Amino acid sequence: MASLPPTVRTTPHRLAERLSHDTEAIWAVLDEALICHLGYDTPAGPLVIPVMHARVNSDLYMHVSTGSQLALEAPAQVCLTATLLDALVLAKSQFHHSLNYRSVIVRGEATVVDDPREIDIALTAIVERVAPGRSQHSRRPNHKELAATQVLRLPIVEASVKQRSGPPKDDEEDLDLPHWAGLLPVVTGMGPAQPTAETAAAGWPAPQSR
Amino acid sequence: MASLPPTVRTTPHRLAERLSHDTEAIWAVLDEALICHLGYDTPAGPLVIPVMHARVNSDLYMHVSTGSQLALEAPAQVCLTATLLDALVLAKSQFHHSLNYRSVIVRGEATVVDDPREIDIALTAIVERVAPGRSQHSRRPNHKELAATQVLRLPIVEASVKQRSGPPKDDEEDLDLPHWAGLLPVVTGMGPAQPTAETAAAGWPAPQSR
Repeated sequence: MASLPPTVRTTPHRLAERLSHDTEAIWAVLDEALICHLGYDTPAGPLVIPVMHARVNSDLYMHVSTGSQLALEAPAQVCLTATLLDALVLAKSQFHHSLNYRSVIVRGEATVVDDPREIDIALTAIVERVAPGRSQHSRRPNHKELAATQVLRLPIVEASVKQRSGPPKDDEEDLDLPHWAGLLPVVTGMGPAQPTAETAAAGWPAPQSR
Repeated sequence: MASLPPTVRTTPHRLAERLSHDTEAIWAVLDEALICHLGYDTPAGPLVIPVMHARVNSDLYMHVSTGSQLALEAPAQVCLTATLLDALVLAKSQFHHSLNYRSVIVRGEATVVDDPREIDIALTAIVERVAPGRSQHSRRPNHKELAATQVLRLPIVEASVKQRSGPPKDDEEDLDLPHWAGLLPVVTGMGPAQPTAETAAAGWPAPQSR
């Protein structure tokens, strides 16, 4: 799969070996992350909020409530960052302590989606991220609910993925120090489903998250 | 414990029942989150990066490499957001699908720490967040390493915690719909430690993360 063209905004000054513009790698992180953090400027300074997102081809969609202060004055320049934490990296030296992670940064202009068909595609994609098939096993939004929902689109054009993996990298002269070195993996998964009392009584099987 | 005074920047327009300025609740989320997302404005627009943080009393500390584009032109207005995801909330209606989460937003001015004693306190706190006691079982930074590290301080003054917990809240008229409703808990924990070959051979016990 193709790579996105690096721009000044997506090219770091250092540790470039950790950075990639590979489209497949970028999409993989965006698809695995359950939430992301969306940053934008406000009259009161920078603001970063957690949001749920869904990718449809090369577009990202998010929704916010129209009544919220989080509703953007779109179109707006934003930065969407999705981070997966894989491990704590413990080195002999404090300086080389690190994290194993995969993080995607998408910068660009977020716009409000007006087309009802595109809104439907976006909201369906978001609910499908919760559990595959879920859009068919829940009530679709009505007109009032749609009016209360702002759907934003951010094209995945100016984007990069940065990652670290593998063991700690200590300086040669530190390797004999009598300190534990290695990885403490961070594991994220789903616990047992907790149906409401009514759902439990009905005995329906729980949806499987991804 | 006291609450922080709400400001215009930390008071939302809606869902206020989910919001608190309680200091203890704010500190608890900041202390549990292994990473946070730091947002700030750049000449090329908003930028949000994942960073590791540590709290010392009512200050947050972060460190970035001085050679990185992420090194701030501090002092700078920033927004630090730490989010813990607890569950996917599946309602009868797509509209009431939600997330159970705890998220802290701290807005304010990040400044570069110059005082060597405060830098030492900050870096020690950050390495102690990886694993309690770790600062005593790893090599401390030398002068060259300290010169390559920018330590930032962000006071926890203008801050709020927002959270959702509990089951889905469906509209009365949806309660009889034949759809599964409940929570799919998201569980984050530590997997088995992975020592380097040399550390495994030495047989040292692995540090315990929090």
